[in-house]
Formats: sequence, C-alpha cells, structure tokens
Amino acid sequence: MRYELYYWPSIQGRGEYVRLALEEAGADYADVARSERGMAAMMRMKETNNGTPPFAPPFLKAGKLVIGQTANILLYLGSRHGLAPKAEAGKLWAHQLQLTVADFVLEIHDTHHPLGPSLYYEDQRSPAKKRTGEFWKERVPKYLGYFERLVHHNGGFYLTGRRLTYVDLSLFQIVEGLRYAFPRRMKAFERGIPGLIDLHDRVASRPNIKTYLSSDRRIAFNEDGIFRRYKALDL
Amino acid sequence: MRYELYYWPSIQGRGEYVRLALEEAGADYADVARSERGMAAMMRMKETNNGTPPFAPPFLKAGKLVIGQTANILLYLGSRHGLAPKAEAGKLWAHQLQLTVADFVLEIHDTHHPLGPSLYYEDQRSPAKKRTGEFWKERVPKYLGYFERLVHHNGGFYLTGRRLTYVDLSLFQIVEGLRYAFPRRMKAFERGIPGLIDLHDRVASRPNIKTYLSSDRRIAFNEDGIFRRYKALDL
Repeated sequence: MRYELYYWPSIQGRGEYVRLALEEAGADYADVARSERGMAAMMRMKETNNGTPPFAPPFLKAGKLVIGQTANILLYLGSRHGLAPKAEAGKLWAHQLQLTVADFVLEIHDTHHPLGPSLYYEDQRSPAKKRTGEFWKERVPKYLGYFERLVHHNGGFYLTGRRLTYVDLSLFQIVEGLRYAFPRRMKAFERGIPGLIDLHDRVASRPNIKTYLSSDRRIAFNEDGIFRRYKALDL
Repeated sequence: MRYELYYWPSIQGRGEYVRLALEEAGADYADVARSERGMAAMMRMKETNNGTPPFAPPFLKAGKLVIGQTANILLYLGSRHGLAPKAEAGKLWAHQLQLTVADFVLEIHDTHHPLGPSLYYEDQRSPAKKRTGEFWKERVPKYLGYFERLVHHNGGFYLTGRRLTYVDLSLFQIVEGLRYAFPRRMKAFERGIPGLIDLHDRVASRPNIKTYLSSDRRIAFNEDGIFRRYKALDL
C-alpha cells in the first residue's frame, strides 16, 4: 500500500515527525501537497472528507483511512512498522511520550507567536522575546531534562529501551530544530544533555534517515516553520 | 478493578476530561491526590514510577498500568467502557478529535498565560488582553466552527454518530468552561453554535453526569485552573 501524506509543501513543521517515521520504515509514500494538484486535493479533503475532515494538516491516507493529528498518525504507523512496542503498556507509554513531545512543539512555536498563531511575528517581537527567555529558563530544562533522564534510565539506548521508536525520531528532530532556531542558546545547553545528543547522533546515522536527510525530500528549515531563526530571540 | 486518578486536587484542569469519562462510565475510581497522603504519592510517582514517570498529571493507574497524557488516558478508557467506537477507523477518528480538543485547551490556557506557564497572570495582563482578543476573533470560531459542522453532519446527535463518546464529554466541558471564563463573550458567541449547545445540554442531562455535577466530587471552576474568569479579558 502506498501511503499519502498531506502537509504544507514548503515547511518541515509537524509533518516532519511523520516523514521521519515513514522514511525510517522504508515505507512507500507520496508527499502529496508538494505538487500543485496535490495541494488542491489537500484543501478539498480538509473541507469534507466524507464527514470526517481533519482539523489541520498533517494527515495520512492509508487505504480508506484518513488519519489526522501527528501523534495519532505515529500511533498508527508505529504498530504497523515496528516503530513502537507491541504490548499495550509499551504502546501507551510511547504514545504518552509523543504527546509530551507535541506539547513541547507547541511551546516552541509560541516562542515566536506568544500572542497567537493569527498574528505575524513582526507584530509580537517584544512579547516573543519575553516568552523565549522564560522558555529557555524554565521550559527547555523541564522538557529536555525529563527526556534526558529517561535515556539514562535506559542505559543510553533508545528512549523506551533497546529498540528505536517513533519517539526517538521525534527527539532527533527536536534537537535539530533547536540547533537551527537557537544556535547560541542550544550550544550552551547541549552540555547538560549528553544522552539526548548521543541519541540524536545515532538516529542521524541510521541508513534510511541518513539517505533521507541528504535527499531533496528533506525540506530545509526556514522562517515559516515551527523552528525559526530570529537573531533577537537567540541572545 | 478500582482505578486511581492522580491530578491536582483543587482544580478541574485537564483531570476533568478524565473525571467526566470515569463518571459517565460509572467506573470505580479514587481521586487520589485529594487527600494529603495521596498528594505525596502523586509526587513520588511523578519522580520515578519504575522508569516510566509521567511528565505531568493527570495520570491514571489501572492495575499495573500507569497512563499519562489526558488524550491517552481517554483512548484507554474509551475502549474499555464503550466510550469510543470499536472499529479501528472510528477509534482513530475519536482520538484525532480529542487531540484537537487538547490543542484548543492549550490555547484557552494561553489566553491568560501568553508569555508562558512559568509567570503569573498578573505579570502578563497586557499581552493576555491582546491574545484573548485574537483568540475570540480567530481561534474560537475556527475550533468551535469545526466541531459545530461535525455535529450537524451527524444530524445533531453525538459528534461521531449516534453514540456518545469521550469527545462529547470533553466538548461539554469546553462549553461549561468558556461560559465560566468569558460569560459576556460566550453569550454572544453561542447563538452561532446551536448544535454544540444542544450537545452540551444533552450531556449535562445524562443521569451519571447529572449526579456527578451536583456532587462534591465536581470541583468548582476557579482562577487556578485552565478556565479563569478575569474581567479584563471578557470585555
């Protein structure tokens, strides 16, 4: 079965967590909205999709199923491609961690959009600065400290044990993104999270991920995505 | 089996979506942290829990399982108590909707905390006003408009069809909360979402929910929770 991924064509955004899972799994998929016709199809599905329209991209078409919400898509893919534990307890644990990553992603987005997603960054520079300060002082240590402790508990392997899950792929993306958006702050912070950095490096060197990252399927970071490099926020 | 719910004892917060599901199901549960000893137990579990500590309350103990993240808990309870469709497609659809509710809840929280959860409201009154304005102008119509269309599509019954799911209980709570926090704004807005208001009323009149709401197990709304009544934000 060829999956169809529907996501905004010019950013990594939330779609990237799905792309990384599909790529690691070596799954056959089309990144539909990267063509003009595909983009039109995405907007149509968002409108109706037979009474079950997704609220927002990304969504994944898997045969007749259309699955929305990033963590929900990963829950589905995880079971089918060996990217999550098989037993119920492990499956719920991985999903719980992914939902925590999702919360963190929203807070990352809010560093440049504290007054809400409907205004431009340029209209909220000053609150963005304030929020970013709090974010690095309180929230990054809280979230990344949590994940760092989990990696150590597992002896420096993957987050939930000796086998890679979609959560590891997502944490790779978090490290990549924070490095892009906040190069100065992240450089200083990284010393305190050696386990996560090591995890990041091991994910990056997996054959399928390595191939993906150097392909043109990987969109470059940019200032329309979730991780944005604004100099004023990285002081 | 007697469930144990762990959540902050003095607010509805995110725990309330779980409480509503447990109550509707007539499940046997203890709201553990509402005693002093229980509160201490919650803090201990947050620390270690045998290597799988939840990032934050709420979490639910079900036998040996400890499940964190509100939507994840509902995913688990939904299957066991007939509060979600049985088939995979329906289960994923309900979960997708719940994750959209979760995104909305975070945006509701950010109306009074646009600069982040680590500062007091009193330190961010002015950005809170601005964010709340945007919230009501752009975000409430987007989210509630979406759910309203879904209710209509289902002929005015429940959100996913003729049977109640945990998503309906959550939308009841959203309506209750918005009425509490923004009585003026919500009064005006409600005219545009008759389907959701009708859904709210039907949930409120279900026997188990009705009993729960008038019991002392239902904590009153207050200004430590997610829905806060600040006069300055309801103009």
